Amino acid sequence: MSSKPRKSPSSPKVAEIARRSVCPVACSLDLLGDRWTLLVVRDLWLGRTRFKDFTASPERIPTNILSERLERLVAHGVAEKVPAADGSKRFGYRLTDKGKALGPILAAIRDWGLTWQPGTQALMTDGGG
Amino acid sequence: MSSKPRKSPSSPKVAEIARRSVCPVACSLDLLGDRWTLLVVRDLWLGRTRFKDFTASPERIPTNILSERLERLVAHGVAEKVPAADGSKRFGYRLTDKGKALGPILAAIRDWGLTWQPGTQALMTDGGG
Repeated sequence: MSSKPRKSPSSPKVAEIARRSVCPVACSLDLLGDRWTLLVVRDLWLGRTRFKDFTASPERIPTNILSERLERLVAHGVAEKVPAADGSKRFGYRLTDKGKALGPILAAIRDWGLTWQPGTQALMTDGGG
Repeated sequence: MSSKPRKSPSSPKVAEIARRSVCPVACSLDLLGDRWTLLVVRDLWLGRTRFKDFTASPERIPTNILSERLERLVAHGVAEKVPAADGSKRFGYRLTDKGKALGPILAAIRDWGLTWQPGTQALMTDGGG
């Protein structure tokens, strides 16, 4: 499990983000504010763990973007690498406590979309991957 | 006040966004998923109305980005133009019902930032602009 924010990032180059202000919304968007990052978090939330599981999602995230986002989420303690469930040498990803704490953000975005974006359908029905 | 989602967008070029899936998180991020859009919504939430008020925020949004984001928010019915409070010919912006409904998303992002991003401070103390 992750420790609280003090942990040193594992990849300083990826982890360094220049803050625009001390506003918690701005600082959070410095890390999460793009079209893809919260979709990767959504997939992690759904229990998906392996690289190929994320690329199989309907949005078809490009693999170079996925690699960068996973590395960044790990560097910032939002996700962590874990051994593959099949006992192979491969590894997967899962949310840390910091990542699980993004649940209310995902839920709020989902609810707004369901209400205000016609034709959307919640995909969050499965828990496996 | 805004009507519900059916309204035709006022600026088709800005309003057209290719959907990546029917997931409400993905569709919402198609519109909101970047470093700046939700900061403009934050400022609107704080009661700021005029272009120069937004540029005065500590993140110093570039004016070309601000113009594009305001136009996009209006095109998607999240914000609307209103006459300036001083009775001049200028205009300002305010959130529609669809925009006000983003409150829970902003609050969730703020709360996550305050908990997990060390050194952040909520700026949402004023209501004027």
